[in-house]
Amino acid sequence: MAFSFFNKLRDKREHLKLIRDELDKVRSVIARQVEPFGPHVRPYLERVCRGRGKLIRPGLVLLTAASTGGVTEKHITFAAMLEMLHMASLVHDDVLDKADTRRDEATPNALWGNELAVLLGDSLLAQAMVMGSELGDMKFIRRLSLGTRDLCEGEVEQSTRLWDMEMTRADYYELIRKKTATLFAMAMSGAAMLQELDDEMVDHLERMGTLLGIAYQIYDDCLDLTGSEDVAGKTLGTDAAKGKLTLPVFFLMESSSDDVADYVRGCVEKREEIDFTRLRGTDAFHEAIRMSADEGRARTAEAREVLWMLPESDGRAALAEMTYRLDELLDDCCN
Amino acid sequence: MAFSFFNKLRDKREHLKLIRDELDKVRSVIARQVEPFGPHVRPYLERVCRGRGKLIRPGLVLLTAASTGGVTEKHITFAAMLEMLHMASLVHDDVLDKADTRRDEATPNALWGNELAVLLGDSLLAQAMVMGSELGDMKFIRRLSLGTRDLCEGEVEQSTRLWDMEMTRADYYELIRKKTATLFAMAMSGAAMLQELDDEMVDHLERMGTLLGIAYQIYDDCLDLTGSEDVAGKTLGTDAAKGKLTLPVFFLMESSSDDVADYVRGCVEKREEIDFTRLRGTDAFHEAIRMSADEGRARTAEAREVLWMLPESDGRAALAEMTYRLDELLDDCCN
Repeated sequence: MAFSFFNKLRDKREHLKLIRDELDKVRSVIARQVEPFGPHVRPYLERVCRGRGKLIRPGLVLLTAASTGGVTEKHITFAAMLEMLHMASLVHDDVLDKADTRRDEATPNALWGNELAVLLGDSLLAQAMVMGSELGDMKFIRRLSLGTRDLCEGEVEQSTRLWDMEMTRADYYELIRKKTATLFAMAMSGAAMLQELDDEMVDHLERMGTLLGIAYQIYDDCLDLTGSEDVAGKTLGTDAAKGKLTLPVFFLMESSSDDVADYVRGCVEKREEIDFTRLRGTDAFHEAIRMSADEGRARTAEAREVLWMLPESDGRAALAEMTYRLDELLDDCCN
Repeated sequence: MAFSFFNKLRDKREHLKLIRDELDKVRSVIARQVEPFGPHVRPYLERVCRGRGKLIRPGLVLLTAASTGGVTEKHITFAAMLEMLHMASLVHDDVLDKADTRRDEATPNALWGNELAVLLGDSLLAQAMVMGSELGDMKFIRRLSLGTRDLCEGEVEQSTRLWDMEMTRADYYELIRKKTATLFAMAMSGAAMLQELDDEMVDHLERMGTLLGIAYQIYDDCLDLTGSEDVAGKTLGTDAAKGKLTLPVFFLMESSSDDVADYVRGCVEKREEIDFTRLRGTDAFHEAIRMSADEGRARTAEAREVLWMLPESDGRAALAEMTYRLDELLDDCCN
């Protein structure tokens, strides 16, 4: 079983019991999305949709709904829709990264080639659009569309800014906001819109989602350098080595240890793979991870400030636990 | 200058003057769609969007609007939106087909690799969704989403049914309905919805679009076997040779000339490239093209039956000219 942020949460935190049945419903709704497709398409999508995802984004939808009046059928559909969108982006990501496995399963590109993987990703995206069109109103659709565009733009930017020495830390934050935090923000703001909360509260929850998404990507970027592949269920250490300028890489380039800073800057300038095995024992490396984790925790703390604006409820408590659990995961990267 | 169905129409038919200014506006709207993207994404999209497309789908939107009360600003945006959707599918198609040039220009995959091409296609699709969200109502969005899903499904099916001996001619028609005719159908039904025509008329015009799209794909499939690459501005003879079972291939497999039928069936069974230079001089080949063209012309005739339901107008006359011009192009393939 792959490492699962959400399953760990579920095991450790009874609060997540709150939405266990709803998450099962989300899984059923996702499984049913292959039904409109014909017999020469369906088997491929079935294989893609059976993946054992962490359902973090559906979890956020459901907990936001639970914190603001309760989970409705629309929230279940919306949660499934966001997971489909996420799956579409993973399928295209795996083509880009030439990844062979994800969540301990062969990727679509490994199974059937890049060509079909591209089209299957497109089909998932289109089906997500169909699901979206069954929900909410034009304002809701507009937010979904803008979010999807941000997601795509973040992906393009990540691809065109590999080894880009002109990239700043501010650029990094904006890039991961688009690439990762958009779906977290859509999860929370969308759930709030389906709950018919006022615009101000929708914006607040969108901001909370953005903060959580950024913290989650920082955690993922730290894990890429500190985690074990067995536990993560995917290839690690490749993002930063292959020219993605992640937060720990920025801190390494800014390190007070001139040796380390020079080495990492030199690699980036020459577009050479960074040898992290060489760096892992150094104080500078631990410092870079610690500073990154601090940045993540600053964002979960800010997210909780938004959360306390909601009235007390089991849903709110579960969302708070989620943020504390993310803090723990960030801590784990430092040890 | 690439061969252009629409430009030929424009040169030969004064009727197309009717929407010349509107088509220029559509070009400007498309050019402006790169503006929301940041500096590390925009230059790539600018390059993709500057392509000299035939604007057949926008033309259909505008002529449908002109035939049903006049072209509005919404029709201009919608026409641009459909062209973006079409461009997104071309960008992904070129990745699939490993095509180096289209419309006499290097393809995105040739310029920047498959990875970025996939993401740029996604970005065009997302931007099309944003444009869609500025138009119409939820019913309109729903039709757009279902259409996009059909388009994707057709593409997947085309990819999974290469060399598929179990494919029938009925399957071929259903496949090209999804893959090609969907956008034609969306053009006409969408224009009608924005004109607030009643559901029955929207359905009629959708049917007309479907018929024109199928006829157009039959023409394209004939051109693939009979055209000259210089004139077409793209690589020809590859679709059928590489296992796409197009209408002329079906007729060749069903030919009364046993030699030809056996040869083509043998190639398909063995998944071997069909050598069309060998077939081109034969009566069976001409017969297959003629029968395909007849099927195309049957559909343009049926499309005109729908068209005559509209009140007489310059727009209707221009749409009729478009169908006659398609007949001429189908005829040209037979000579």
